[in-house]
Amino acid sequence: MKRVKLEKKVLSENDSIAARLRAKFHERRILCLNLISSPGSGKTTLLERTLEGFEPGERVGVLTGDIQTDNDAARLRRYKFPVKQITTGGTCHLDAGMIERALADFPIDNVDVLFIENVGNLVCPASYDLGEAAKIVLLSVAEGDEKPLKYPGIFFKSALMVLTKLDLLPHVPFDLAKAEKNARRINPEIEIRRVSCATGEGLREWREWIEKRREQVRQEGLASVI
Amino acid sequence: MKRVKLEKKVLSENDSIAARLRAKFHERRILCLNLISSPGSGKTTLLERTLEGFEPGERVGVLTGDIQTDNDAARLRRYKFPVKQITTGGTCHLDAGMIERALADFPIDNVDVLFIENVGNLVCPASYDLGEAAKIVLLSVAEGDEKPLKYPGIFFKSALMVLTKLDLLPHVPFDLAKAEKNARRINPEIEIRRVSCATGEGLREWREWIEKRREQVRQEGLASVI
Repeated sequence: MKRVKLEKKVLSENDSIAARLRAKFHERRILCLNLISSPGSGKTTLLERTLEGFEPGERVGVLTGDIQTDNDAARLRRYKFPVKQITTGGTCHLDAGMIERALADFPIDNVDVLFIENVGNLVCPASYDLGEAAKIVLLSVAEGDEKPLKYPGIFFKSALMVLTKLDLLPHVPFDLAKAEKNARRINPEIEIRRVSCATGEGLREWREWIEKRREQVRQEGLASVI
Repeated sequence: MKRVKLEKKVLSENDSIAARLRAKFHERRILCLNLISSPGSGKTTLLERTLEGFEPGERVGVLTGDIQTDNDAARLRRYKFPVKQITTGGTCHLDAGMIERALADFPIDNVDVLFIENVGNLVCPASYDLGEAAKIVLLSVAEGDEKPLKYPGIFFKSALMVLTKLDLLPHVPFDLAKAEKNARRINPEIEIRRVSCATGEGLREWREWIEKRREQVRQEGLASVI
């Protein structure tokens, strides 16, 4: 019982920092998106293709979380937008405090879309509000179409599911319709996009999803998206 | 600081139960193997192919962990060996207490190889000793060859890395030699097997790995494996 109580305390501390972050994002009209998935579902690759699609000088930035290494930041920096690595040193998720500390020396004034790439983990990051406008869950077709039922927390909390690695479909036993049905059983409101970063399929629709929310935030603030 | 202290307390409680389990496994000459990976790396499929390879009546059993659903147990029961689902209801890993409770009505006397399929999570399960003889980490070639560096904890603690979904190699950017080098940078002692459950490649070598340890445990007890 003590453990549950302490967990609640940690989460409530997290929530107050997240509320502070959300107020800041709202005030500055920043669309913050929190990308969550298993290791190897293609978060970094999707971000590479996404950054590639923005014109130089666009107001876009990334905070990328990993337990160890700064490989991901190195990959993402090639696109010349502000990128900062958060190395958690063992912790299995990002929390709001890590985001607040990372933003202290991040050029937030030059950004109106902020991507957060969470630690690769389909479970724990779902419990931590980072002040984002929306959580986005990625699911690669190599992982299996039953995953939304087995890891319901993150599918319940996400505004969007991005099915990735669509090019592998001919080689794996993955039923797209079943995966989407399973996700909607957990979260009837969830939106869905299908992409392949290898062939480019679906990237336009994914970018349109972002641009639509970005425009909403610009005009009406965060509340219109959450 | 309080949080760290409590985490230590939880882990030390876990360790005493794990020690009890290990003593029990040693006494009964049971080889217990704890399989850990990301969601969708193919733990259940590998176990299906493994159970299929055992003769009817062989002394083999499985405890399979999931956050929700008992899909995995349903899949594994078809092979007619004792299988029990542990549904964690949100918890991101199995702990020793869950194993002890599951064994209370499991026919442990009819088993001398016990597989534990952990929750799909490459991070948290690494911290929880379940009294196993060895942790085994699975990494699918769809996930990326840099994963041992990004999630070092589990690669450091595992006796064996099984590279899965080898049949996908022609379709994904995965360098086998690099993945193995990365795993050995974290854990120079780690053994490695490569399998494809789709084609059957490598399954014989994986079964031989198990049989060798089973024989050691039969003859000399657990200490010879750990």
